[in-house]
Amino acid sequence: MSLFITFEGIEGAGKTSRLQALAEHLRNQNVPVTVTHEPGGCPLADGIRALLLAPDQPPMADRAELLLYLAARAQHVREVVRPALERGDVVLCDRFHDSTLAYQGYARGLDIVLIRQINQFAAGIAPDATFLLDLPAEEGLRRSHRRDQLKGLSSDRLEREHLDFHRKVRDGFLKLASGEKERFHIFDATRPPKDLDREIAQRFAVLASSGMAPGR
Amino acid sequence: MSLFITFEGIEGAGKTSRLQALAEHLRNQNVPVTVTHEPGGCPLADGIRALLLAPDQPPMADRAELLLYLAARAQHVREVVRPALERGDVVLCDRFHDSTLAYQGYARGLDIVLIRQINQFAAGIAPDATFLLDLPAEEGLRRSHRRDQLKGLSSDRLEREHLDFHRKVRDGFLKLASGEKERFHIFDATRPPKDLDREIAQRFAVLASSGMAPGR
Repeated sequence: MSLFITFEGIEGAGKTSRLQALAEHLRNQNVPVTVTHEPGGCPLADGIRALLLAPDQPPMADRAELLLYLAARAQHVREVVRPALERGDVVLCDRFHDSTLAYQGYARGLDIVLIRQINQFAAGIAPDATFLLDLPAEEGLRRSHRRDQLKGLSSDRLEREHLDFHRKVRDGFLKLASGEKERFHIFDATRPPKDLDREIAQRFAVLASSGMAPGR
Repeated sequence: MSLFITFEGIEGAGKTSRLQALAEHLRNQNVPVTVTHEPGGCPLADGIRALLLAPDQPPMADRAELLLYLAARAQHVREVVRPALERGDVVLCDRFHDSTLAYQGYARGLDIVLIRQINQFAAGIAPDATFLLDLPAEEGLRRSHRRDQLKGLSSDRLEREHLDFHRKVRDGFLKLASGEKERFHIFDATRPPKDLDREIAQRFAVLASSGMAPGR
């Protein structure tokens, strides 16, 4: 049973941790799982990611940034996501198309219709379900800064964008979710991680048992 | 008098040398000139170029390749080409939009209409004139291999594509030229460099004196 599930949300929403917890839960049940992330997930896309996140670039043109994300996606889908789905894995992907729409579309103001069109060209695939971890932008940024300090990291280019930007991103995700209620599953990311993990695993079980036939 | 002129042609056609000769000729006449090239021409685009030309990549998805070229163009136009035109320079650019159409469109088979559309989004600017250096693919590849051997270089990923591919690229350029006869100026690149340089400088003089008002 192949299923393509994406985790979305602002910085600090806990996407990566929740995704890893679901992956472990599924592996314990002997479900074949591929865990991956964007931007990145394969050597070319990792190279693109390094360009995107480098903090001391001269200002990057919004359109260059968008096209880099989509180039990384084209390679990642071909090299990782499609092959995994074809061998019947559950694919859990940390960020995908909706991040592009929320960040480059709703927050930076690039044309949503055009982003959808170029994405369709780049990826040619849509998630079966999207788990949106929602929380206020202030709380997400606070968590994300704390995490970076713990790791001794300076914040990368995207995390240094100001609060207003992250609010637009959050609102963008919520708009996307309200436009596609079947695909999106919203979780309150301010809740305790253990409760969230249980809720996410239950939601996954419902999706899987519904015999969801991906229309790819 | 700002003018945006691109040099196009297959590998080994002599674009870079002819462009440099014209630049020198113009500088001797105190014409302000900006010389640049694609992919590259600014730090981000140089980073993208390195990804594009790396010979030991796993196979690159055609769509990822296209989007990388266009991302590099978006940044290059914003950071280099537009500012130079705005201060009144003649901009001579080694490869531009037509290379994308010839390589990714005519040779790799991606949708020409879509390439034009994404390019319009990325660049938002068209050359005032395009100098196409035309020669048979066999001759271009022979020259390009000889040049690499002289420099002790191994050929990069694109140059190692086989002859048939380079023939499609050449035919692509000729099709583009026949569709836009006003913008394209075709030169026979098998002729001696000195003759070519003279012809190119003359053609430039005619363009410049026609008081060509760029419709940007």
